[in-house]
Amino acid sequence: MITVNVLYPNEDGSKFDMNYYLKSHIPMVQKLLGSALKGVVVEQGLGGGAPGTKAAYSTICHLRFDSVEAFQSAFGPHAPAIQKDIANYSSVPPVIQISDVKLS
Amino acid sequence: MITVNVLYPNEDGSKFDMNYYLKSHIPMVQKLLGSALKGVVVEQGLGGGAPGTKAAYSTICHLRFDSVEAFQSAFGPHAPAIQKDIANYSSVPPVIQISDVKLS
Repeated sequence: MITVNVLYPNEDGSKFDMNYYLKSHIPMVQKLLGSALKGVVVEQGLGGGAPGTKAAYSTICHLRFDSVEAFQSAFGPHAPAIQKDIANYSSVPPVIQISDVKLS
Repeated sequence: MITVNVLYPNEDGSKFDMNYYLKSHIPMVQKLLGSALKGVVVEQGLGGGAPGTKAAYSTICHLRFDSVEAFQSAFGPHAPAIQKDIANYSSVPPVIQISDVKLS
């Protein structure tokens, strides 16, 4: 199992429309990726580890797939449509990381 | 439900002992936090979003709790012991973020 982490930096002045993200972007991603997408988690940053510090990321999304190949096969054909939609809810591009799940 | 994200930067030359982390650190954290800890996910970074790019984080850990207060109550008394153990497996300090789970 692998996770594609999509992390939106919480830069000063950056904007993120969580309502659009949950109501429009994520449902579109789920529809386009179909059964290859094994799970989705969306988190909204509350703060850093120390009291009074801000979260490094305004939003973190985790997308589960069986393998890197399964992700690439499902995502590749739809990458332009998914990436084009980012400007509709985020003023900053996300950091993307693919990880191997060691424990869950 | 909230998540405490613990992200270890994948800096050039940094070291992370995944074996120690999975066999010793995480079991210690589970024992110390007890039933307040609702779930743990550990991921090992494979790469960035673009082919051939490196992962921003060597390791990402997600710890689930019912609330920020539940996390603070469980973690506070054991913070020194848990934080002291980091030097046994990582050459870099983690980025920590507390997030509210919006979708899972």
